Amino acid sequence: MKDKLYIIKIGGNVINSAGTLSRFLTDFALIKEKKLLVHGGGKLLEELAAKLGVTQQVHEGRRVTSAETMRLATMVYAGFINKQVVAKLNALQVPAIGLSGADANCVSATKRPPVPVDYGYAGDVTYKHVNTAFINLLLEQRLTPVFCSVTHNGQGQLLNTNADTMAAELAKSLAHQYDVRLHFCFEKKGVLKDPENEASLIATISRREYELLVQQNVISNGMLPKMSNAFEALAHGVKHVAIGHSDQLLNAIHQQPHAGTYLVA
Amino acid sequence: MKDKLYIIKIGGNVINSAGTLSRFLTDFALIKEKKLLVHGGGKLLEELAAKLGVTQQVHEGRRVTSAETMRLATMVYAGFINKQVVAKLNALQVPAIGLSGADANCVSATKRPPVPVDYGYAGDVTYKHVNTAFINLLLEQRLTPVFCSVTHNGQGQLLNTNADTMAAELAKSLAHQYDVRLHFCFEKKGVLKDPENEASLIATISRREYELLVQQNVISNGMLPKMSNAFEALAHGVKHVAIGHSDQLLNAIHQQPHAGTYLVA
Repeated sequence: MKDKLYIIKIGGNVINSAGTLSRFLTDFALIKEKKLLVHGGGKLLEELAAKLGVTQQVHEGRRVTSAETMRLATMVYAGFINKQVVAKLNALQVPAIGLSGADANCVSATKRPPVPVDYGYAGDVTYKHVNTAFINLLLEQRLTPVFCSVTHNGQGQLLNTNADTMAAELAKSLAHQYDVRLHFCFEKKGVLKDPENEASLIATISRREYELLVQQNVISNGMLPKMSNAFEALAHGVKHVAIGHSDQLLNAIHQQPHAGTYLVA
Repeated sequence: MKDKLYIIKIGGNVINSAGTLSRFLTDFALIKEKKLLVHGGGKLLEELAAKLGVTQQVHEGRRVTSAETMRLATMVYAGFINKQVVAKLNALQVPAIGLSGADANCVSATKRPPVPVDYGYAGDVTYKHVNTAFINLLLEQRLTPVFCSVTHNGQGQLLNTNADTMAAELAKSLAHQYDVRLHFCFEKKGVLKDPENEASLIATISRREYELLVQQNVISNGMLPKMSNAFEALAHGVKHVAIGHSDQLLNAIHQQPHAGTYLVA
């Protein structure tokens, strides 16, 4: 039987509030199985960019990463957030190691082609370019890898990667060796039928049900890439994917009924 | 016979110029033996602090690290510089991994006591609190650790550590298992008898000779802590310590006559 591996992704809303982050990390520390954390940090990046007068450009909800924004992303994601999280996890008796995709060539990426839209230093990742041997070595040492979403192209250029995609591709790459459970923690209870009504939470959803809801325009635009990533991960052998609130999802990770929305193949 | 391990420290002047850094990394990549890099980055930190209007306080040549400066140091050292160097080394076919002291608890530190001078979030390190087992594991995988001088206290607080001291303590801690050669690369040719005259380079110096030169006020104030660290490292079994220019020291690392000043027990 394969070892369980929890891969948890937290977004900017979790990171940005000291209280939320602290509650999340306490819950995360209680997971006894092997685990791996992926974080974004777009909100802190935007704050720093605003202070420094570095204009942020967005195209259809996706950041355009200029050279200057890439510098700031490396500072905020790989530096400030990553090391804060690692130091706090170590204090919670979770021996952790912070990593970007460049470190030990853990995740290499391809600069997104500039046509039809030039997203600048945006990097696309795939499960095929993950150094699973090294990540395994860390997990076997009972270390918890903490990944920021900075990657590199192998030729010296750092790239800015979508943290949801990074989590999903890491999950796919490790599904051969581990019984991988992928959890996306954010500020909503999960996938809602009515975005205005938290009581309309969908507890379990299959790909077929998801496709029907997309046709009916029930799934909000913001949720589409996250769920599309999630179903891709399931198709590649990930055991389950859950989406939910950072305060609830890990709390009920070993319980029934669980919190959040669980996606099943 | 022990494996050779080169521990190289580069300072802000090497990092701050793209050309100097690039030349240094090309020379560093040519070292065939096991190697480990330690970097500072005070100059880039000061630039960012100035842009953000974060006042820098210095007491007797040492930085006072306020909470805000610690945030910026984590961004600049552990983020921007560290990941740039790692990405560039990977591009030079040197599989590298960037680390702060918090990662895998590699180097834990003690916050400097606030009396007689409060240096804020300054962390003092000793060779006794280095996770040599994990660093060995990385070296055995033929990975090159790249350390920034950010450490932690084990209770969730990141600390700002002197990069020269960090390099010297890492060297001491690894001297049991390796034949360690510690090199400090900076912007001068080495230890000069006359700071105004580069031709007055001292090629080799023993502790006894050093102490005599200190008594005669020949060693400049800026050089004293570096050399004191270096002789301490020799006393703990480090094979040799060299101090010299980043363009010359590694270039002649396997040659006679060598470049820079070599310190011997």
